Amino acid sequence: MIIDVHGHYTTEPEPLHRFRSAQLRGEAPSAAALNGQVSDEEIRESVEEHQIRVLRERGGDLMLFSPRASGMAHHEPDAGIANAWAQASNDMVHRVSQLFPAHFAPVAQLPQTPEGNLEGVLAELKRTVEGLGFVGANLNPDPSGTWAGVPLTDPSWFPIYEAAEDLGVPLMVHVSTACNPNFHTLGAHYLNADTSVFMQLLPSDLFTRFPGLKLVIPHGGGAVPYHWGRYRGLAMRHGWQDPSELLRNVFFDTAVYHQPGYDLLVDLIPASNVLFASEMLGAVRGADPETGVEWDDTLAYLRSSQRSQADWDAITHGNALRVYPRLAVRLAGSS
Amino acid sequence: MIIDVHGHYTTEPEPLHRFRSAQLRGEAPSAAALNGQVSDEEIRESVEEHQIRVLRERGGDLMLFSPRASGMAHHEPDAGIANAWAQASNDMVHRVSQLFPAHFAPVAQLPQTPEGNLEGVLAELKRTVEGLGFVGANLNPDPSGTWAGVPLTDPSWFPIYEAAEDLGVPLMVHVSTACNPNFHTLGAHYLNADTSVFMQLLPSDLFTRFPGLKLVIPHGGGAVPYHWGRYRGLAMRHGWQDPSELLRNVFFDTAVYHQPGYDLLVDLIPASNVLFASEMLGAVRGADPETGVEWDDTLAYLRSSQRSQADWDAITHGNALRVYPRLAVRLAGSS
Repeated sequence: MIIDVHGHYTTEPEPLHRFRSAQLRGEAPSAAALNGQVSDEEIRESVEEHQIRVLRERGGDLMLFSPRASGMAHHEPDAGIANAWAQASNDMVHRVSQLFPAHFAPVAQLPQTPEGNLEGVLAELKRTVEGLGFVGANLNPDPSGTWAGVPLTDPSWFPIYEAAEDLGVPLMVHVSTACNPNFHTLGAHYLNADTSVFMQLLPSDLFTRFPGLKLVIPHGGGAVPYHWGRYRGLAMRHGWQDPSELLRNVFFDTAVYHQPGYDLLVDLIPASNVLFASEMLGAVRGADPETGVEWDDTLAYLRSSQRSQADWDAITHGNALRVYPRLAVRLAGSS
Repeated sequence: MIIDVHGHYTTEPEPLHRFRSAQLRGEAPSAAALNGQVSDEEIRESVEEHQIRVLRERGGDLMLFSPRASGMAHHEPDAGIANAWAQASNDMVHRVSQLFPAHFAPVAQLPQTPEGNLEGVLAELKRTVEGLGFVGANLNPDPSGTWAGVPLTDPSWFPIYEAAEDLGVPLMVHVSTACNPNFHTLGAHYLNADTSVFMQLLPSDLFTRFPGLKLVIPHGGGAVPYHWGRYRGLAMRHGWQDPSELLRNVFFDTAVYHQPGYDLLVDLIPASNVLFASEMLGAVRGADPETGVEWDDTLAYLRSSQRSQADWDAITHGNALRVYPRLAVRLAGSS
């Protein structure tokens, strides 16, 4: 079984875009009404010829599916708007997962705002996980889009970690659109966030406080595996924990889009901490003209990396079922 | 000959620190007076048992030497303070290079401020290069320390590029201290800056305007080589130049502190665009207890990477002499 832990609903139905536009015009569209405006047929069509087709062609089975990352736009300060937007977006991925339970398991967008909106975040996490069977959530370490907030190790984040621990769901640390012209969203901001968060964790005791918390850092961990020696050396010099100690709680996905980078990741990071992911259909589409391999066909890179059967099993599904325990329950229930 | 293109004066004499403290207390210490307070003997001692010893032990010959990167602190807004601080700092590395011309060639700190201080920057660049024989300069893409400024492709930066082209010096793109708690200076900000700047350049026509401009991106290019496929794919999808086209003007140093990361860099980036560097004595000191290799002994990694003689020559000195033409002139004059 091949589980892809990182996919976003980037082929979402047009009414969802209109819902958002209406919000940003100052209207208050209803998430319940939106559900009525989108037919099951429309949702089916939005993924059958896209994510499901690609999943099948590549030999994948199931994708953890969350709303479009750049669309989360947590920098909008109004908590009511954020709550309704997360609800509408999550309802859509929930419907996808209901229509195709063998292919999609839903992961939540949280209604974060620059001020936090903790109440809304906790309510939506509970609603989606307990009420709708979501198996995880995306946590934006920079809801402002300008890094105006505090590091993930600040106590203001702790209630979210407590809730995630209690509910038994991991959090994928994933930013949204950058609101700073120095940072291209897809080519810099995403990777910088991955790098910055790992570094925030390194000198901290966060996982002593929250031993059950599991964080997934996407995009192959940003710059981290490439600079693993830098982190080991900094940690030794400053008396921090070794970066390998973070691997009890921190996992990297495999959204790295060329063979040499991919090989570095899977050679360096223990197989127990690598989760297969493609982020298709995402930022990078099309195929490398030199190899014919689609950039985000990370299963092709994994095959070429020639892992042992044990590593292959861990990376393609064993780790996912362990890190996302509700996924295991969900699959057991649907089989 | 082994040329290390990236070293900072991190063992600077105490009076330089006192100079800075006085500045920040609102006094106006004189750079000329500082020079009188530091004896040649003191300068000699500050590097003989440190950078020169390590250089010799590892088999290196010469280091491009600039003031401490985190000390540049361009976020201080006063242009007069920035000018005096750059002058004092540059005078110190100049004296090091005068005392040990076979071991050090000086690279300038520029008196940038969040507002730019273009006049001061251009004057100090001219003073150091034409007047004192400096072979390059460090350009901070984020003088605010909070990314409050504009990307390096903004026309406000162009006069610096014109001057660098005219003077025949490359610019190493190197940030200073981060002024945002989300970004650890050494473990996140440096790498994020490298990544962000490469991404700023990718969709731009900067090098059509400045074909003679050469930029060196330190720390192995941040996350860039690890995510090279991501940049190729983004470029194809958006109709930008291929990242390889940037390699006419963009170079990466080898300050990557473990063998797997190092191998990725030198396997992936053409040898013509990789400049040997260690950034010693810098952020990461000490040795890997598993291998006994010092983290920043990047010459050991280069040896283990088993390059061809041609690649070895290019990476260890050929590229440096080409990218830093004033270094070649300087060495010819001193031999």
